[in-house]
Amino acid sequence: MARIAYLGPPGTFTEEAALRYGPNAELVPRSTEAAAVAAVESGEADEAVLPIENSIEGSVTRTIDALIHDSKLAIRREIILPIEHCLIVRPGMTAADVRVVISIQQALNQCRKYIEAQFPNASQQAALSTAAAVQDMFSVEGGAAIANARAAELHGGAILERGVQDAAHNKTRFVVLAPQDSEATGRDKTSIAFTVAHDRPGTLVDVLHEFSDRGINLTKIESRPSRDELGIYIFLVDLEGHRTDANVAEALEAVRQKAFFFRILGSYPRFDDARDP
Amino acid sequence: MARIAYLGPPGTFTEEAALRYGPNAELVPRSTEAAAVAAVESGEADEAVLPIENSIEGSVTRTIDALIHDSKLAIRREIILPIEHCLIVRPGMTAADVRVVISIQQALNQCRKYIEAQFPNASQQAALSTAAAVQDMFSVEGGAAIANARAAELHGGAILERGVQDAAHNKTRFVVLAPQDSEATGRDKTSIAFTVAHDRPGTLVDVLHEFSDRGINLTKIESRPSRDELGIYIFLVDLEGHRTDANVAEALEAVRQKAFFFRILGSYPRFDDARDP
Repeated sequence: MARIAYLGPPGTFTEEAALRYGPNAELVPRSTEAAAVAAVESGEADEAVLPIENSIEGSVTRTIDALIHDSKLAIRREIILPIEHCLIVRPGMTAADVRVVISIQQALNQCRKYIEAQFPNASQQAALSTAAAVQDMFSVEGGAAIANARAAELHGGAILERGVQDAAHNKTRFVVLAPQDSEATGRDKTSIAFTVAHDRPGTLVDVLHEFSDRGINLTKIESRPSRDELGIYIFLVDLEGHRTDANVAEALEAVRQKAFFFRILGSYPRFDDARDP
Repeated sequence: MARIAYLGPPGTFTEEAALRYGPNAELVPRSTEAAAVAAVESGEADEAVLPIENSIEGSVTRTIDALIHDSKLAIRREIILPIEHCLIVRPGMTAADVRVVISIQQALNQCRKYIEAQFPNASQQAALSTAAAVQDMFSVEGGAAIANARAAELHGGAILERGVQDAAHNKTRFVVLAPQDSEATGRDKTSIAFTVAHDRPGTLVDVLHEFSDRGINLTKIESRPSRDELGIYIFLVDLEGHRTDANVAEALEAVRQKAFFFRILGSYPRFDDARDP
């Protein structure tokens, strides 16, 4: 049975992604991204599921930094989940009883307009995870938690309302990390990281040309400041195609020669909601 | 007297940036990035100071989204501050008494190795801001807060240790937003946002060429998914020079013609630690 480490505790959105990816796997919760990666590297787990990007909040830099700096693991799969926040209370409580809304800062932000409209007089309380918010709620007079439906189920909370996030298109992209990436399937993506000198105009353009000249589409580009040297940026690029496709392989080799740091983070099947589990 | 809205409450790192920028200004705390922007637009404040990027955590997407989507304000200034986290307790308490470490999730993450090494048996508790962590600490048995020195001073906490963040180079970049950006000073930066079709290879390269062909250096590039349309990315680029410099003006006009959304977010003096207040 596969063992999958994930950013826990049970009842988080990452657990939901891990369950979707490996419904029969043994799930191994870890409290930080780095600890989930370490669990795979030490052999306590076979794979790790971590959030990498949310459509509202942007990149999860701790996952990206763990991938670039702290690990040799590769991206084997991507999973995209809609984020449905629920308003959860203790059974028997009604909306009129809500005095305190509890969740992680990001979830409170994502439901700000809803909370202001429905509970203008409620105060807010921070929690360490959406799952912990449901547990905390039971010991707070008039407490209501913002979390997913599974957290309610796990901890015996009652869902008062579903889909309370302000933006309709709130999705999170998760990655499955493992010692090896995936074989080519014909509908793949590849993630890479590289560094070019940022103080010379055109170095980034030079690199991007290697892709555009070969008709390779980029689906994402992002710069992260390097942790060590000021003025040096690490670029993260997602592109369409597998690293073993002839044109992609050629482009990657050309980029490798132009960059002074270069790493292929992995090739993996493009997520397809209709086909993927 | 200038009135400066900022992401509060008093005692946050953003207040520290606002105080550095306007030591004699009237400070107007707001609880969200959007509310600080709204305060300027309604005339309750003249300017707003908001965090836009942290060297460990990455971009502050709520500030970026407020700039792109919800506001016509421009970036008038940037301020870069080192983030020095302190371990704060009630006066008279010692490190041996610490049982619970309290802060916002990001600050707990940034001090993770320190907390694990010094307080391996302590639990963690979330707060809504670093300043609130110091207030919360007084009502928690064995509570210690992670926050800046000013929060300790404001709320009567005692600093047990300074500089408890794991990474030496932890800096946050703040922006000052106002109805108008800045005049050219000869050492400027310009921030822009634009959208190109992401499903045609080379459109981004085409745009970046307008800068590299004119010897204009980019200091940052980032993509954000558009809130409205799937598959459309908004690119955020910071470049060296003022929008009224001849080569920059020419490049910006060329990009405007190639992009189907284009906005100059502002030109402003490059932050210089040795010269700036």
